[in-house]
Amino acid sequence: MKQMKSLITGGAGFIGSHVARHCLEAGHEVLVLDDLSGGFEDHIPEGATFIKGSITDHKLLADLFNQYKFDYVYHLAAYAAEGLSHFIRRFNYTNNLIGSVNLINEAVKHKVKCFAFTSSIAVYGPGQVPMREDMTPLPEDPYGVAKYAVELDLKAAHEMFGLNYVVFRPHNVYGENQNIGDKYRNVIGIFMNQIMQDKPLTIFGDGTQTRAFSYIDDVAIPIARSVSMPEAYNQVFNIGADTPYTVKELAEVVGKHFGASPKINYLAARKEVQHAYSDHSKAHEVFGTEDSVSLDAGIQKMASWAEKVGARKSQEFEQVEVRENMPEGW
Amino acid sequence: MKQMKSLITGGAGFIGSHVARHCLEAGHEVLVLDDLSGGFEDHIPEGATFIKGSITDHKLLADLFNQYKFDYVYHLAAYAAEGLSHFIRRFNYTNNLIGSVNLINEAVKHKVKCFAFTSSIAVYGPGQVPMREDMTPLPEDPYGVAKYAVELDLKAAHEMFGLNYVVFRPHNVYGENQNIGDKYRNVIGIFMNQIMQDKPLTIFGDGTQTRAFSYIDDVAIPIARSVSMPEAYNQVFNIGADTPYTVKELAEVVGKHFGASPKINYLAARKEVQHAYSDHSKAHEVFGTEDSVSLDAGIQKMASWAEKVGARKSQEFEQVEVRENMPEGW
Ligand SMILES: NC(=O)c1ccc[n+]([C@@H]2O[C@H](COP(=O)([O-])OP(=O)(O)OC[C@H]3O[C@@H](n4cnc5c(N)ncnc54)[C@H](O)[C@@H]3O)[C@@H](O)[C@H]2O)c1
Ligand SMILES: NC(=O)c1ccc[n+]([C@@H]2O[C@H](COP(=O)([O-])OP(=O)(O)OC[C@H]3O[C@@H](n4cnc5c(N)ncnc54)[C@H](O)[C@@H]3O)[C@@H](O)[C@H]2O)c1
Repeated sequence: MKQMKSLITGGAGFIGSHVARHCLEAGHEVLVLDDLSGGFEDHIPEGATFIKGSITDHKLLADLFNQYKFDYVYHLAAYAAEGLSHFIRRFNYTNNLIGSVNLINEAVKHKVKCFAFTSSIAVYGPGQVPMREDMTPLPEDPYGVAKYAVELDLKAAHEMFGLNYVVFRPHNVYGENQNIGDKYRNVIGIFMNQIMQDKPLTIFGDGTQTRAFSYIDDVAIPIARSVSMPEAYNQVFNIGADTPYTVKELAEVVGKHFGASPKINYLAARKEVQHAYSDHSKAHEVFGTEDSVSLDAGIQKMASWAEKVGARKSQEFEQVEVRENMPEGW
Repeated sequence: MKQMKSLITGGAGFIGSHVARHCLEAGHEVLVLDDLSGGFEDHIPEGATFIKGSITDHKLLADLFNQYKFDYVYHLAAYAAEGLSHFIRRFNYTNNLIGSVNLINEAVKHKVKCFAFTSSIAVYGPGQVPMREDMTPLPEDPYGVAKYAVELDLKAAHEMFGLNYVVFRPHNVYGENQNIGDKYRNVIGIFMNQIMQDKPLTIFGDGTQTRAFSYIDDVAIPIARSVSMPEAYNQVFNIGADTPYTVKELAEVVGKHFGASPKINYLAARKEVQHAYSDHSKAHEVFGTEDSVSLDAGIQKMASWAEKVGARKSQEFEQVEVRENMPEGW
């Protein structure tokens, strides 16, 4: 059997590095394209070819597609800072939408067999729980708008050109290789980074907002498999865990696995969805019904990884466009 | 009373030049920003200040907003080639979405009083007639996706920053100052340009697709007035004519006003919505119930203008990104 060639954008990042590993294990030839803006070269699994570059560089993409003739594209590169996206509109749409359509153009021209894309539950917007794939999205922040625009654009590309795609809407994913140094996103990573520096955990609002935090394996495995499953083509799938926890409960679980009872610093609430959990029956049907990893078990794995790699210094995002109404501490 | 300062992007274009004229008549100080990619300097009404430049140039925008401190922004600049947008994805989203969010950023920073935006009926997608503002959009081409993304982004900017906006979804507008030399859009302009060159009229498909062609006054007047009508703020309005005609009927009406019975060249159907007409009751309620100009009367006005300015040479769009499946004759 011919070896499949896969491009994985964002493959130095959290989810992408796991997807890359699963693809290598499945026998793909893997090329990782990542600009290392949020990822780390040492997360890229051995056996993958790495090109440092940006999906916004359409000439580079044209060269890569010409040279490698990919069978599959896994498009994970993005800056996934939902709350920050209000303040970095241009950056958000350039990186997350223009970068994506550059890839869609090349995928069409080179007749890629399947294009897997990580969208987000951010497309649903407020008040739709449990989130189901047959609901009409109504995103309320620029990050969610960019993701939804890419979803619609993929659908248009399928109708016009026959490009096959699979869209995933993962739900607050955590696990090994996550960027715990980004203070603008990934509450679990932020908590771990704070605990390891003996800082209080920061919570926006009263901590009663709920999320169904999802361990990486529940997400990366279906993504990796999807491109060779025609029954998944041209469909949208929620993926992740089923059980919502409050952010306060999360703080306790994280504390427990670091043997600490962390202090909490409550900040003013920011504009965000109060409750979010997804219905995953569609994914279970197509990708098999596996029990998702429990929060306790997942946090334990991630915590022992985090203790090994240690705390990371948080960077300011340098290209803030609008400073009005930014949340405290940003 | 203080004189209002208005920025009109795309003010050298068709609808924008009329909006600029109405704003001047209402006593605004008007600055037109246009890159002349689709507009003409001599369409800009006397009394307006003209800056040649692009909305994609965010540094230029920052300078203009600092210098002029606009009260209102009318954002009409766009490349509105719906059918072509499949083949120019990057250009489409850069011009129509990134350009728009550059303006939204500045409008937020400078606390603009109201931001009027021309979206499009392209946001509705297929099968929703009559199109009503309370329907959930489902655009099916990159042009419509970009417009819908801007609508959602404006809503997000309103919630986060209090920016007031008015969104218009005009319906196939025609009239004096339209770019009749663009072979990729504006069927009425294309027909007139063909007739004046004794060429057959080209129709995609069998010509039974219907549209409610709208004369410019029915559109430009409400847009111009909207920014000073708080009752219109943060709402979406369909605007244009109510009566749908087939493209074949349209060809006859246009022929009649040029004293010609034009030959028709039927081309392969392209992917487009078959029937489109909007419900305008919301606009009538807020902006007053005026009878819309009939197709016959409107075409007559436009035809006598077109005969005065003469036929225009059609240009190829130079930056096509994907050539697969392009319609015949493009
Ligand atoms: N982690 C989650 O909870 C979650 C939830 C929903 C969706 N997603 C989506 O999953 C994908 C992966 O997210 P993640 O959590 O692994 O984040 P991540 O930041 O760890 O990974 C993203 C990777 O993309 C790279 N990247 C960013 N912009 C790039 C560009 N212009 N060109 C090339 N590379 C670029 C970064 O360097 C990083 O390595 C993203 O598309 C994200 O929006 C993540
Ligand atoms: N004409 C219609 O039937 C119709 C229908 C629905 C929506 N609209 C929308 O109304 C608006 C005006 O359309 P129109 O029919 O007058 O088209 P038009 O092409 O005559 O006007 C658009 C103007 O914008 C300018 N422009 C384009 N890109 C620019 C950029 N990056 N920077 C600065 N200027 C730029 C062009 O030079 C042109 O003068 C557009 O936003 C269009 O999408 C038009």
